[in-house]
Amino acid sequence: MNTRSSRVTCDLSVSVDGYSAGLHQTEQRPFGDDAGDGWGSRLHAWMFETPEQRQSELDRLATTGAFIMGRNMFGPVRGGWDRQWKGWWGDDPPYHAPVYVLTHHPRDPQPMEGGTTFHFVTDGIESALRQALEAAGDRNVSIHGGATTINQYLAAQLIDELRLHIVPCTLGAGTRLFDGVPPLNLEQVESRATHSVTHVTYRVLP
Amino acid sequence: MNTRSSRVTCDLSVSVDGYSAGLHQTEQRPFGDDAGDGWGSRLHAWMFETPEQRQSELDRLATTGAFIMGRNMFGPVRGGWDRQWKGWWGDDPPYHAPVYVLTHHPRDPQPMEGGTTFHFVTDGIESALRQALEAAGDRNVSIHGGATTINQYLAAQLIDELRLHIVPCTLGAGTRLFDGVPPLNLEQVESRATHSVTHVTYRVLP
Repeated sequence: MNTRSSRVTCDLSVSVDGYSAGLHQTEQRPFGDDAGDGWGSRLHAWMFETPEQRQSELDRLATTGAFIMGRNMFGPVRGGWDRQWKGWWGDDPPYHAPVYVLTHHPRDPQPMEGGTTFHFVTDGIESALRQALEAAGDRNVSIHGGATTINQYLAAQLIDELRLHIVPCTLGAGTRLFDGVPPLNLEQVESRATHSVTHVTYRVLP
Repeated sequence: MNTRSSRVTCDLSVSVDGYSAGLHQTEQRPFGDDAGDGWGSRLHAWMFETPEQRQSELDRLATTGAFIMGRNMFGPVRGGWDRQWKGWWGDDPPYHAPVYVLTHHPRDPQPMEGGTTFHFVTDGIESALRQALEAAGDRNVSIHGGATTINQYLAAQLIDELRLHIVPCTLGAGTRLFDGVPPLNLEQVESRATHSVTHVTYRVLP
């Protein structure tokens, strides 16, 4: 995929032991069980530590022309779309771009305010990536999560750049990055620390 | 243990997916199966990337007054000590201090050149730590490995400081740091990158 100018990227907050979410997701707990102290908020609090970090995350979203996410990241609804769930993010989601949601259940596109449209893809991860790359043009495609979806793309060697935000805790259970992914050869492209978190960008080598 | 001036530390090279060694250790392959390209050398090559890094590792060893290691880190001999195995490190091991080897099989201390003596501890990890702290005086005790031993000390909340050297590859199998360890609350004390590796120091919070 080196002829493209756009890259397929992935940004993920993980615990030091590699988990990105706990078990037992529900509508009230999008990141699953919180072991009493809020895993989801612990894994993502760093984004809001300083105005600079928040801005840096918004800038990154702005360089992304399309997003791909798994159905569990989109919402807690399982099986057919018997309710008109529109994501966790309110009427104006932070994507401002097409978002391709992987699902086994067809559904019409769901336009939102601010330029976000949720598209529902039923024919697999490669089809979703093709559509996202076409929509993104020169901008990047973000494999946005969760870890189960990212692992499928990693196993298929379809991710160019993996950016991990390593949060100072271990979780011991949950959804784990790299589960079921064959060994990868990576190149450390950038590594920097903010107050509590280490941010490492890896290029995935062929 | 906060009344001590010496700390219980642990330094470990890990892959991005948290493994510190492959499976199937033998005398010829102290880090186990190498998946064709030398896991052990990949995980530890960073120490020799520059003279500065090598010196920094030697300096760290010098601030350590005693070491603790599991029997598999000491050698490939299993069961009783039917051969006079003296470690992987030749006649003058790089420790220059007492090294406490956890084993179920009693053996007399094994003095080496340069100040290293291997002591064999059969009554558990807490006894080994007591002996090591006493021997170390004001200097630190290093829980030197492998990950199975480190995990026992982490689970018992006996490690103050964990320094990880995150190497840009994933292994997908082997001995994994944090396996079986209850969730830990960590504080990121230092994080810095060298050419290919990210070095993060965590304080283990109570």
